[in-house]
Amino acid sequence: MAVKFVRPKRVRLARDNWNIQLDEQGRLRHLVDVQGLPPQLITQILDTAESFVSVTDRSIKKVPLLRGRTVFNLFFEPSTRTRTTFELAEKRLSADVMNLNVATSATTKGESLLDTLRNLEAMQADLFVVRHADSGAAHFIASQVAPHISVVNAGDGRYAHPTQALLDLFTIRHFKQDFTRLRVAIVGDVLHSRVARSQIHALNSVNTGEVRVVAPPTLLPAAVERMGVHVYPDLESGIRDADVIIMLRLQKERMRGALLPSEGEYFQRFGLTPERLALARPDAIVMHPGPVNRGVEIASAVADGPQSVILDQVSFGIAVRMAVLSMCLNRGESQ
Amino acid sequence: MAVKFVRPKRVRLARDNWNIQLDEQGRLRHLVDVQGLPPQLITQILDTAESFVSVTDRSIKKVPLLRGRTVFNLFFEPSTRTRTTFELAEKRLSADVMNLNVATSATTKGESLLDTLRNLEAMQADLFVVRHADSGAAHFIASQVAPHISVVNAGDGRYAHPTQALLDLFTIRHFKQDFTRLRVAIVGDVLHSRVARSQIHALNSVNTGEVRVVAPPTLLPAAVERMGVHVYPDLESGIRDADVIIMLRLQKERMRGALLPSEGEYFQRFGLTPERLALARPDAIVMHPGPVNRGVEIASAVADGPQSVILDQVSFGIAVRMAVLSMCLNRGESQ
Amino acid sequence: MAVKFVRPKRVRLARDNWNIQLDEQGRLRHLVDVQGLPPQLITQILDTAESFVSVTDRSIKKVPLLRGRTVFNLFFEPSTRTRTTFELAEKRLSADVMNLNVATSATTKGESLLDTLRNLEAMQADLFVVRHADSGAAHFIASQVAPHISVVNAGDGRYAHPTQALLDLFTIRHFKQDFTRLRVAIVGDVLHSRVARSQIHALNSVNTGEVRVVAPPTLLPAAVERMGVHVYPDLESGIRDADVIIMLRLQKERMRGALLPSEGEYFQRFGLTPERLALARPDAIVMHPGPVNRGVEIASAVADGPQSVILDQVSFGIAVRMAVLSMCLNRGESQ
Repeated sequence: MAVKFVRPKRVRLARDNWNIQLDEQGRLRHLVDVQGLPPQLITQILDTAESFVSVTDRSIKKVPLLRGRTVFNLFFEPSTRTRTTFELAEKRLSADVMNLNVATSATTKGESLLDTLRNLEAMQADLFVVRHADSGAAHFIASQVAPHISVVNAGDGRYAHPTQALLDLFTIRHFKQDFTRLRVAIVGDVLHSRVARSQIHALNSVNTGEVRVVAPPTLLPAAVERMGVHVYPDLESGIRDADVIIMLRLQKERMRGALLPSEGEYFQRFGLTPERLALARPDAIVMHPGPVNRGVEIASAVADGPQSVILDQVSFGIAVRMAVLSMCLNRGESQ
Repeated sequence: MAVKFVRPKRVRLARDNWNIQLDEQGRLRHLVDVQGLPPQLITQILDTAESFVSVTDRSIKKVPLLRGRTVFNLFFEPSTRTRTTFELAEKRLSADVMNLNVATSATTKGESLLDTLRNLEAMQADLFVVRHADSGAAHFIASQVAPHISVVNAGDGRYAHPTQALLDLFTIRHFKQDFTRLRVAIVGDVLHSRVARSQIHALNSVNTGEVRVVAPPTLLPAAVERMGVHVYPDLESGIRDADVIIMLRLQKERMRGALLPSEGEYFQRFGLTPERLALARPDAIVMHPGPVNRGVEIASAVADGPQSVILDQVSFGIAVRMAVLSMCLNRGESQ
Repeated sequence: MAVKFVRPKRVRLARDNWNIQLDEQGRLRHLVDVQGLPPQLITQILDTAESFVSVTDRSIKKVPLLRGRTVFNLFFEPSTRTRTTFELAEKRLSADVMNLNVATSATTKGESLLDTLRNLEAMQADLFVVRHADSGAAHFIASQVAPHISVVNAGDGRYAHPTQALLDLFTIRHFKQDFTRLRVAIVGDVLHSRVARSQIHALNSVNTGEVRVVAPPTLLPAAVERMGVHVYPDLESGIRDADVIIMLRLQKERMRGALLPSEGEYFQRFGLTPERLALARPDAIVMHPGPVNRGVEIASAVADGPQSVILDQVSFGIAVRMAVLSMCLNRGESQ
């Protein structure tokens, strides 16, 4: 039986409500969405992550910053890849890690989500990493938890996937330094992508020169331009002169819904091939949140090619998650 | 394939047999049942738990008492909630924790229970936390293990759930200090409850003033009075002037067995509402082992009300389990 | 969906290819197979394991040799027993342990094996313990991983199970010291056994006096004599005057394939009973990789008897795995 996610009548997602993420001193308490994070806080996360890149590069990849702290990974929908990166980040910070696959476990006796949270709080949890199929779930949980607890969103519904967006920012900054002159193209199923939504907010908050979305009209949200992006209906024009190309993963299950043509047809129109990549700037980097569908949204020659930074994203993802976790939990202490 | 639990022809459960729980110096070696534990040992467990409450309250919730010790959580029946509390207790004591979901794993190749135990012993296990659907399983395992190994019962069949009973004692002592003048009412499905059985033994061993059981006749064991309790067939008289009310969880699966009327009807007769709670002493506390069935055995207004100590029970449960584990494994050393 | 194991067109298994296991200084980098390991390296593994036996015997069973290192247990086929022994060895070396049940998780989104490996590498994994149903899988993975990563084979198809063979060697050396005068009989389904294959290579590489295989013709590989063994078609002659008897586990699923008679008939012809054991040398030891099928390949009286060292094998298995893991990962440092 799945957790009954009792949404309050009106989840307010307005910008002013997002200071739920900050404590009274303006420090990061929860990470629910990049929307609403002050730009200097984003910069602080990236700078903190920088210091962890060197930790994960050395042979003893462990720091005691979260020793004796208890982190619960609450996965209401399964995601081995994301859970693995969080679990690694937590262990390298020396936290005590508890994995709860909630859909199949704590609630088999019919406990409600709030009762589960209250119980984990009573066990002196320090932080919940939350993955949920429903949009707004992480925000709802963050709004409900006890004052000493932090919540980090590991992806909720179509809403947000902020650590993914932050690791993307980190990767772009690593390779391109200054955001203000960059052309960044986000290509693919923007409509269903919490990753894309978070990326757009992140890129705009650091004043990226131009943020483009490249997708067939059926895969774009209504009025997407209001998010501060330029829309390109075809790949060739969308990636021309781009500095950064972010390919989204095609959710194959959308195929059945008739929103998309066949995989082959999709690749014909929106697949990133070496020929098309040549339209971008010669030093453009290619990104992808993974896992890659080779031959669907991207050709293997590009995914494995010299301009691909897909595996760098994975490495940086650990460091970014270590930064977020340690900033949420060590607010009283100097980093 | 489930583990073949080959019960010896006669499991003697008589009181004199329970010194299996003590070593030659009278210290706690196994915790199988509260029945048979000397009262001073129960007090020692509660006192030790007291010292761990402060550990779990501080930000670094870790002590090195079980560093380098290996604890196996052997769950022959699944229970995320109980396993989580034990795993947390073990990690906060710095033990190496191994989770074995035995029903689905070690025995898929048809290994017998004893062979599984012998193998884990050969791996230098130090302690087994055992959860099993069969009554007497933890006692059987404790009677079979090698001399250096301890066994802690995390619930077996209808038989016993001693750490639950001890955390209940701890909670009552925390809020009420002296047991000898208390009226404690245990309400609900006593017949099928290992929790109730363990609670009754625990409360009587510390000379609780009056222990009451409140249940419809179909949910009471035969001759329950011989356990040293007073029987009340209706809730109103059962909780009148009570200092402590322990609500049992209604196992909904019993419904099908026709032992119970509908949930609604049960709530009508035995559900704890604010109105009924007013019959108890004004400072009465309300307890429940969780997870709570709101609107079945207890009204939400009571479960979340000022007299509820249900979440305190959860917190204290970690400390009590830390106490039991460390006492079993650190017998040679001063605490 | 299972991982697509794309085997390269020709996996060369020739002896000279096995130096993949050694680094440029001739130290152990991967453990894929005992075949091809220099005898002095085998001796070094056994000697290193000897030092860990004392670690696992004391009450704090932990050494910091792999502190801050990340070990992934990649189980493409489930095996609780083998995973448990590796996980214990890893934790006692203080490694950060990540368990990935790959068949059911990382690949539910259709990621290929190589993409999974690349991602884990990017997460700064240090070592992969690999279990796979396909022969050659561990070798393939070892041939593909990044230079800083080690691979340890925890059993692949019918091919190899090298840590099992090494713990068997360790056990024999422990009880019998000198290999050169020993008669060792391997009894059972040699045809389907990766354990037997690895044992034969291991025993021959340390110049065991005589290695015998005892099996019905249907359960022997073609031309098994070329592996350097003597074939005995019946149990009585095969174990006569043997110093060591290694019983293989009968894979009951083979029964259906008509390669074997019934379990009862098999026990009649090849089951090790006390009467038959009397044909071996009086101080012969009896070994079995576990889990034991009592009454199928071995009588309980023998499995639990004074000549059985089956549980010693389990204990030594932890020490041998600790040795292999620490040698692979601490090559730059003196042990």
